[in-house]
Formats: sequence, C-alpha cells, structure tokens
Amino acid sequence: MNPRRLEAFSDGVFAIIITIMVLELRAPEEPTLGALRPLVPVFLCYVLSFVILGIYWNNHHHMIHVTKRVDGGILWANLHLLFWLSLFPFVTAWMGQHFEPVPTAVYGVVNFMAGISYFILQRAILAQEGPSSVLAKAVGKDVKGKLSPLLYATAVGAAFVSPPIAGALYVAVALMWLVPDRRIVRAIEVEGHHR
Amino acid sequence: MNPRRLEAFSDGVFAIIITIMVLELRAPEEPTLGALRPLVPVFLCYVLSFVILGIYWNNHHHMIHVTKRVDGGILWANLHLLFWLSLFPFVTAWMGQHFEPVPTAVYGVVNFMAGISYFILQRAILAQEGPSSVLAKAVGKDVKGKLSPLLYATAVGAAFVSPPIAGALYVAVALMWLVPDRRIVRAIEVEGHHR
Amino acid sequence: MNPRRLEAFSDGVFAIIITIMVLELRAPEEPTLGALRPLVPVFLCYVLSFVILGIYWNNHHHMIHVTKRVDGGILWANLHLLFWLSLFPFVTAWMGQHFEPVPTAVYGVVNFMAGISYFILQRAILAQEGPSSVLAKAVGKDVKGKLSPLLYATAVGAAFVSPPIAGALYVAVALMWLVPDRRIVRAIEVEGHHR
Amino acid sequence: MNPRRLEAFSDGVFAIIITIMVLELRAPEEPTLGALRPLVPVFLCYVLSFVILGIYWNNHHHMIHVTKRVDGGILWANLHLLFWLSLFPFVTAWMGQHFEPVPTAVYGVVNFMAGISYFILQRAILAQEGPSSVLAKAVGKDVKGKLSPLLYATAVGAAFVSPPIAGALYVAVALMWLVPDRRIVRAIEVEGHHR
Repeated sequence: MNPRRLEAFSDGVFAIIITIMVLELRAPEEPTLGALRPLVPVFLCYVLSFVILGIYWNNHHHMIHVTKRVDGGILWANLHLLFWLSLFPFVTAWMGQHFEPVPTAVYGVVNFMAGISYFILQRAILAQEGPSSVLAKAVGKDVKGKLSPLLYATAVGAAFVSPPIAGALYVAVALMWLVPDRRIVRAIEVEGHHR
Repeated sequence: MNPRRLEAFSDGVFAIIITIMVLELRAPEEPTLGALRPLVPVFLCYVLSFVILGIYWNNHHHMIHVTKRVDGGILWANLHLLFWLSLFPFVTAWMGQHFEPVPTAVYGVVNFMAGISYFILQRAILAQEGPSSVLAKAVGKDVKGKLSPLLYATAVGAAFVSPPIAGALYVAVALMWLVPDRRIVRAIEVEGHHR
Repeated sequence: MNPRRLEAFSDGVFAIIITIMVLELRAPEEPTLGALRPLVPVFLCYVLSFVILGIYWNNHHHMIHVTKRVDGGILWANLHLLFWLSLFPFVTAWMGQHFEPVPTAVYGVVNFMAGISYFILQRAILAQEGPSSVLAKAVGKDVKGKLSPLLYATAVGAAFVSPPIAGALYVAVALMWLVPDRRIVRAIEVEGHHR
Repeated sequence: MNPRRLEAFSDGVFAIIITIMVLELRAPEEPTLGALRPLVPVFLCYVLSFVILGIYWNNHHHMIHVTKRVDGGILWANLHLLFWLSLFPFVTAWMGQHFEPVPTAVYGVVNFMAGISYFILQRAILAQEGPSSVLAKAVGKDVKGKLSPLLYATAVGAAFVSPPIAGALYVAVALMWLVPDRRIVRAIEVEGHHR
C-alpha cells in the first residue's frame, strides 16, 4: 500500500475524532451564563484532548512522511493506534462530566495505550526503514516517547489519590510535546545525566 | 470516473463509519468502575467491527489500486458495499447492548450482505479488467471470499440457538482474514482436497 | 481555486452526509424482531436518500471533472447545493418516522431545492466553460434535470393527498437517474414529440 | 510539513463541522407544519453559520494555496483556528434554541475568537512568506479582517441589550465577506478617509 493512502485515511479519522468530540458539549437548557458553568470542565477536557490529538496528528505525519512502504504490519499497527485514539471522545466526555478518580484514571489508560500503540507503530516503521533511515535518526533515543507512557501510568495511579494531580500530569505531557523539540529533549537528557 | 476519486470517497466513508461507531459508547452516568461494566459487551462489539472494517478497508484498497477504469456498474457496486457497511454502527450498537438471538443474527445478516456486496464489486471489476489482469491472479479461487458468507449464514442460524456460538464465528471469520494470506488459503485448499 | 480542491471538499461533505444519515437508525430497546418493525420505514427512507445522494455524488463529479476553473460564483453555487443536501439526514429521519403529509412534503421540498441548486451550479459552470465545451455537449437538453424539479413539485402537492403517491414519485425520479442515460432520455424525448 | 497535507486535513475538519451542525436540527415529534415552527430560528442560525464557515473555508484555501512551507507555528495557528471553528455546532445550536442575550453573546465570542485566530494564522504565514510575497499583496491593509473582530465585539455587547441587533451585526459581517472583494474594501476605505 502506498503511504499516501495510509496518510489520507488516517487524516480522515483524525479529523473526525477531533471534531466529533465537540458533540459532547451540548447546548444547555437555560440561556444563562450560569448554565455554562457545568460545561467548564467538559470544555477544558475538550481543549486538552484537542491539543493531544493535534500533537499525534502532527507527529504521525512526520513519521509517515519519511516512510517509503507500508506493509501489513505497519497497516495494522496504524489501525491499532487509530483505535485507541477513537476512544478519546468517550473518555474526554466522561472525565469532563465527572472529574473523579475512575473517569480520570480511565482517561489516562486510553492515553497510555495510545502512547504504547504509537511506539509500536514507530517500531514497525523503523524495522522496515532500517537503522540508517531518516526516521531512525530523527527519533534518536526517543526520550519523550518513552517518558510519556511512564507519566501516564503514574497519572493513572495518582487519579485514585487526587484527580487534579492526574490532570496536571496530563497537561504536563501535552506541554512537553508542544514545546519545540530539541531543547527540551536535550534538557531532559542533561537532567538525566546529572542525576 | 478516475479510480482515485472512487478510492478517496470510499476512504472518507470508511473513516467516518469506523469513527462514528464509537459514539455508541456513551459516557456512563456514574463515575465508578462498576458503571463501565454494562459497556464491556458494547466495547467488545466495537473492537470486532473495527477490525472487520479495517479488513474491508485494506482489501478494498488493494482491489481498487489495480483497477484501471471505473464504469457505472463498478461505481454502484461500490456504493452498494458502502451501504451495507454504513449499517455497522447500528448493528454493532444493538448486538453490544443486547447480546441475544435477534440482534446477534441481524449483525450476521449485515455482515453476510457486506460480504456478498464485496463479492459483487469484485466480480464487476474482474469483468472489466479481464481474466489475465493482476486482480484476477491475486484473487485466484478466492476461498476466503466464498467461505465468509457461508460462515456468516451459519452464524445467523446459530444465533437463534446460542449467541456466543454466533459471536465466535464472527471472530473466527475476522481472524481468518487477519492472518497473512497465502498460508491459510493454502491450508484451507489442502483441507478441502483431503475431505 | 483549483477544481480538485472543490471536488475533495465536496467529496468529504458527501461522505459525511451519506454516513450520518444512518445515525437516525437507532438500536431498539428490545432485542426482538418486532422491535425492528417501526424501523422499517426509517430504513426504506434511508435507502432512498442513500441512492439519491449517490446519484448526486456521481453526477457532481462528472460535472466538476470537466470544469477547468472555479470562480466565486461556482464556489458558492456548489456550497448552495451542499447546503440543501446537508438537510437530507433531517428530512429523511422525519419522513421515516412519520410517513404522513407534512414530513413527506418537506422531503420533497428539500429534494426540489437540491435539484434547483444543482441546476444553478450547472448553469454557473456552463456559463464559464462556454457553449462548445465538453459539459455543454454532455448536458445537452438536460431533460432529466428539468423534469426532476417538476416531478418533485408534483410530489409535494401529492403528499397532502396521499403520502404513498409522493413516495412513489420520489422513487420514480431516483430510478429515472439510475437507469443508464441515453435510452431513457431518448424515450422521454420521443414521448414528448408524440404528445 | 507539506501545505497540501495541512489543506487536506483542514478540509476534512471544515467538511465535518459544516455537516454535523445540521444534527442539531432534530426531526420533530409531530408530523405537522406547526412542529417545524420552533425549528425556524435553529434553521436560520444554521444557515448563518453555514455561510460563515463557507467564507472561512474559501479564504483559508486561498491563503494556504500561496503558502510555500508549513512550520510548527503555522501548524498550531491553524489548529487554533480549527478549534474555535469546531465550537460552531455548539454555539449555533444554543443561539438557535434560545435567541436570548447570553447565547447570542456567546455566539459572538466564538466568532470573535475565530476571527482573531484567523488573523494570527495569517500573520504567521505572512511572517514566513515575507512582505513581498503574493499573500502580502493580496492581504494588503486587510480592512475586513480588522473590521470583523471589532463588529463581533460590538455585537457581543449589543446582545445584552437586544439579541436581534447582535444577530443583524452577525449577518452584516457575513454579507461584508460575501460581496465581491475590491469594491466594498475600497468603499470602506473611502468612507474611512471621509470621516
């Protein structure tokens, strides 16, 4: 299969997931500012998920862009990633409506699985492209890619103690990916060396 | 019509179907693990349908990829396939909410019709491409393509006796398509010869 | 604007409209065949609208395919068409749930408007492409394009007398477009001459 | 990232937003013309938002079309725009159901933010393309782009006094963008000089 087709199909799924999430923001019954109040956490969770999906979309394309051939393994690793991402509207709505231990932990579980499935997809592509490929060099030690699932796993545990702590960790991971790449990676590596 | 357009449009429909299915997974009222319980069968049905649609998408593209021209017959055979696939969110939700004879049988009926419509589409393309085309060689005896509707028909009947048996058959058909092609086809053919 | 972009965007909208219509088919509360009964008219209306949208999609592409340039007029004529088509999920659901005078007439009104807006789009493109263009020759007298709004207008009136008559007219228009082009057009023209 | 990819992804999101808005038009319970009555404001708001999104889509493409390279800043500025546009189904439904001060003002706030985010995106692209680029010349003084947020801000305030005045301002901004470009811009500039 041509990588362009995989990219176009994935683009479609990304666009749909990112857009149908907003359907969970339902117009309130009352036409008052107070009626918007209970929607604030739903809205904030929507913003967070929107940013996370934006990051995935961005990184996904850079990765597929340097992929030369798509075999069955890559194709299914990609569908596996899209599967976990497709659960975002569900977990975003639940955490937004109930910012409590279980929904907050489940949000983390889906993020954890999405991170793992992204890692698997990257591995499948790297295995095919070879260690001297552009992707292999770009990925490097992949500090962020390894740190993210760890932070999500921590957040899942933390959710049972304090949902706000878990929420802060979700925001932190998103920020870690948003900040332009090289510096923070270098910073983390340096910090790692100093410890 | 250019096959690329047919492909792009079908891609869009595939992407939407596969993604809106998840809308049936509604955020529970209660923020407890117990509240997720009744969603487990809905979730499992979603996984199954996701995999089936992934297989269709994959095979559909390989087929259209080697198609040189799209005439009216192929165009409508394709829409006919998309029509049955568009019923997946409906039957997936129903079977997920009620894993009982009728919904389980109806799930099989839609899968049966999707299989038949895929077969018709393949025939329409083969008729145009000719017996010496790449597609004709790739399809070969099309053991899987013929076996699938048979298994679905069996499952529809089985659903009235035992929904789990029907469910197992649906999973079996999906696995049959997931396993890399040549070996299982050969295995089935050999088994066929020995009988 | 490049016609390819207009085509891709329109394709997306077509794919979404045709797919979200099915969301009106909601999984019944009861797991019985009897529970499917009230869904039969909804299902039949869905089939009809699916076919009509399929015809529009098909003709739309043939038309845009021979368009060389898209100016502001064509762009908005196209959005105007998409607007009326976007109302299909709404009118399909309503007529499906209530096969009675008003919803059946409203279904016809939206079809009428879609037909008119298609006609306007065609005019806008013809005006730009010129009378000796491929499209101008292909469209010719455009008997179907002129007959359709007439039949829809008739159906809207008929709906208040008998919804089934209106329904039969909607099916008739769809069949008129489905049957391969030349013969029926010739037949209608010949019949016109004989009167 | 290739601008074509950004365009295709944005196209997908535009197509989905513009189409799922109509899901808020729910089929009435009763099959009567009277039952359509309460839907009239919802319908009119849908028309307005459809036109506004059509304008954004149109301008967005002209802008991306002349963009040669997409860096991280442009990518996120684009996602930022899509985020505010994704809130259109929500605010359209609310204002349509309750044409009262708060929902009407919130509609204006989202339009204001969308206008600002479009402006930011344009700035990001201009900064990269340079002052002698095609886009820089096309944008010029960008009277409309600066006037729109101003009018939206005014409308937000006006909504608390009189929702119809705010609504009229929303329509006015849409018309300002719909009318072919040069003349009205010149008219506004001339009017500005005379004051």
